[in-house]
Amino acid sequence: MTRKIAIFDTTLRDGEQSPGASMNTEEKLVVARQLLRLNVDVIEAGFPISSPGDFESVRRIAELAGDDATVVGLTRAVEKDIDRAAEALKYAKRPRIHTGIGVSPSHMHDKLRITEDQCIERAVAAVSYAKKYVEDVQFYAEDAGRADYAFLAKVIQAVIEAGATVVNIPDTTGYSLPDEFGQRIKYLMENVRGIENATVSVHCHNDLGMATALSLAGVRNGATQVECTINGLGERAGNTAMEEVVMGIRMHGDELDAHTDINTREFIKASRLASSITGINVQVNKAIVGANAFAHSSGIHQDGVLKKRDTYEIIDPAEVGAGQSQIVLTARSGHAALKHRLEELGYELDKEHLDRMYDAFLDLADKKKEVYDEDLESLMHESRRNETAVYTLESVQISCGFPLTPTATVTLRNAADQVVTACDFGTGPIDAMYKAVNKIVQVENDLSEFSVQSVTRGIDALGEVTVRVTAPDGEVYTGRGADGDIVVSSAKAYLNALNRLINDKAEHRK
Amino acid sequence: MTRKIAIFDTTLRDGEQSPGASMNTEEKLVVARQLLRLNVDVIEAGFPISSPGDFESVRRIAELAGDDATVVGLTRAVEKDIDRAAEALKYAKRPRIHTGIGVSPSHMHDKLRITEDQCIERAVAAVSYAKKYVEDVQFYAEDAGRADYAFLAKVIQAVIEAGATVVNIPDTTGYSLPDEFGQRIKYLMENVRGIENATVSVHCHNDLGMATALSLAGVRNGATQVECTINGLGERAGNTAMEEVVMGIRMHGDELDAHTDINTREFIKASRLASSITGINVQVNKAIVGANAFAHSSGIHQDGVLKKRDTYEIIDPAEVGAGQSQIVLTARSGHAALKHRLEELGYELDKEHLDRMYDAFLDLADKKKEVYDEDLESLMHESRRNETAVYTLESVQISCGFPLTPTATVTLRNAADQVVTACDFGTGPIDAMYKAVNKIVQVENDLSEFSVQSVTRGIDALGEVTVRVTAPDGEVYTGRGADGDIVVSSAKAYLNALNRLINDKAEHRK
Repeated sequence: MTRKIAIFDTTLRDGEQSPGASMNTEEKLVVARQLLRLNVDVIEAGFPISSPGDFESVRRIAELAGDDATVVGLTRAVEKDIDRAAEALKYAKRPRIHTGIGVSPSHMHDKLRITEDQCIERAVAAVSYAKKYVEDVQFYAEDAGRADYAFLAKVIQAVIEAGATVVNIPDTTGYSLPDEFGQRIKYLMENVRGIENATVSVHCHNDLGMATALSLAGVRNGATQVECTINGLGERAGNTAMEEVVMGIRMHGDELDAHTDINTREFIKASRLASSITGINVQVNKAIVGANAFAHSSGIHQDGVLKKRDTYEIIDPAEVGAGQSQIVLTARSGHAALKHRLEELGYELDKEHLDRMYDAFLDLADKKKEVYDEDLESLMHESRRNETAVYTLESVQISCGFPLTPTATVTLRNAADQVVTACDFGTGPIDAMYKAVNKIVQVENDLSEFSVQSVTRGIDALGEVTVRVTAPDGEVYTGRGADGDIVVSSAKAYLNALNRLINDKAEHRK
Repeated sequence: MTRKIAIFDTTLRDGEQSPGASMNTEEKLVVARQLLRLNVDVIEAGFPISSPGDFESVRRIAELAGDDATVVGLTRAVEKDIDRAAEALKYAKRPRIHTGIGVSPSHMHDKLRITEDQCIERAVAAVSYAKKYVEDVQFYAEDAGRADYAFLAKVIQAVIEAGATVVNIPDTTGYSLPDEFGQRIKYLMENVRGIENATVSVHCHNDLGMATALSLAGVRNGATQVECTINGLGERAGNTAMEEVVMGIRMHGDELDAHTDINTREFIKASRLASSITGINVQVNKAIVGANAFAHSSGIHQDGVLKKRDTYEIIDPAEVGAGQSQIVLTARSGHAALKHRLEELGYELDKEHLDRMYDAFLDLADKKKEVYDEDLESLMHESRRNETAVYTLESVQISCGFPLTPTATVTLRNAADQVVTACDFGTGPIDAMYKAVNKIVQVENDLSEFSVQSVTRGIDALGEVTVRVTAPDGEVYTGRGADGDIVVSSAKAYLNALNRLINDKAEHRK
């Protein structure tokens, strides 16, 4: 039997740090449910002291996961951080506190202004303090990729002696070469006394496009936990993509002496869900989950490939959950059929929510003949977005074209249940509509991104619009909207972003 | 001095094999000019025998490149392929013929049905035959990543003896691990007699997300040429991304004993150009060229990073050509200002083309206050798209919204200069408009993708629409359109795709 490699997902913590990818608690729970379906070993659910929202997310995900996954709260090597994480994890069945400190010369001397001895002292103190709350304590050696080998070994040995069960060796800057990073892990395996009693974890970034290779170099040299995110989400060029590193281990299990327990058939769905919630799409030539990942330019070639080559060499698209969309429902499908299909997709709805979904479904099925799984998921996201809305869309009316002056009339309902109408013109229908909305919702913002993706194939597909708006304080908010009419999708997406901005600023004022 | 690593770009050959990424000759020339600005060493311009279009592209790029780059035509190990490539390269200053054959057991026994001796015989014959035409002959050992070490060494030695100046060791399936692939290159360096007289090249694919790491493992072990594409374009999950592998070499020049002569400041522009022409966008968390590649979530953090860390560890965004858009022109800018700016962007226009561009520019500047470089590039692409149009857009008129029935009226001009109008309704304005177009242009097709990207920031930005349509024979055509009005962009994009489909089918009937 090969070594079991634990998959530590940090989509909800490090992934969420992508500009514009912030999620509210409800959205994080939707992602967490998908992580459980993927059968990840560990879910890093947030950084509890950073905000009440992060605290709440960790608390609720800990309840949700139960015995199915370890749930982690991140902390700095500071007592109040650890107290707060312990509180958020109080009801977790498998709690883990993740604490740590910078260990490279740059982090110790320039950022923290501490000596090497002080660094070890703080690291040990933090681990010992966390051990008072939980048995399972993970230590991160921030910027380990640039730390002195001997010093790094000394820190790791000290924290293991203090009770750390997992030691995380991150390549924080994402600039290492795989063989060098592998050597670093090997050095620790050979020079840290007691390392066989801890799990060695790798946490890599993709700044040079090598996060997957770095992680596998770690696994080959002794690591048995990999930290990663769905779609490689994360700051800058992102973290290691779960789907890549897991399939890499699967294709090379013997050479790496490794396997994971991930349910790879959930990859495509997880990828779509993460895109839909964060508004960050994957490119068509993204490995494993891109639309072209398994597309050979010629059918004959593909046929030859599948006939002759071992499955060990070619990934069967079904193995990662790719395949043709299934036609599931039409306007003649009833409540029960919709409920059944949504349950298969992982959504359990109360009666009231199901009724609302059924209305939205019928409305779509009237316009489109065939309603696909992707359409249903898009409707689900849409209904979730409406739950916390301050402004909702009553109607929008557009005339535009070439040569015409695009004009929009918009009617919104506000939280006080008042209905307000405004109109404006612009360079295009979206511009005109946004200006009309701005006349009603007077919130200063700058539209920094606008994109549309069709959810399914065909010209009658649902269009999903993503917008990103930047508040005057520089904070970015993502909004999404789905409708058969792209202008309506755009209006919904813009309102979704504005509602998030308004809710967030209101929360901060509390 | 470190070893010079030659950059062999295959965006126009392997990159173009991405589904829907096919380019016409004019588009290939635009990309080739950008490759020359990047200062690549080698341009693989096409596969001359595969189509008259590929032949013509190789011929014209060979003329364009002159002394500035080696131009390559691909062939199978077949005399008529080599004849055709030699003809296409007749006027090249630095011609190279790239020939080769499968060398893995699967390729030899299942695909080609030849013995090992026959394989070597054919390889040597092809190289010798190509040498009659050109001095510079590159041999590719297809599926080398899965070939027997000793046999691979034997083939490589034989082709070098036959005169191959470059030997390309591809990881055709994209499933190798970097350290294994590096070992393979090392084995060849140590076991092939005369290998010091040839350039060893690596050609990797990204199926497991490790193309860059594979290529660098090749470089570390002796390769001095890397084959790659802009944005990592290519079949399935694509080829090695030029921007990643070049920046990897730049960050780790000493460890790898390597440097390139690439003008990295052209990377962002090259990335945008390739996206615009092929319609294949890069994700925001793509390494080096993604919108978030250098975005730190907090400004303070970024400030700290830039102050304290060496440039060796952090890439300065300016080094790859990233930065704020420059406001260059307004409605008050004259012909000369436009001409000057376009020249700086690399476009040289004749008077008539400049006049047309100026009209389009003024039209845009009237709607938008500030015209950015990206807007100008988008207008340039738009004007190029019109050059070979069968149908052009005269007018389009839309009414839509919620709750309304989206309706579109479209007027097109056909090649016979006739003006035809049609109207229809649909689930949304785009659907209605497409249906109206279909009533006029009666070409069977299936819309398989629709996406919109805003070209610049702000709500009055140009919207660039990409559509992909699939013809009944399964061939995919990409269309793009840009306008301030998203519905007009969509109409232009759809017509662009239909025009390509019509032109392509007409060419095949010839």
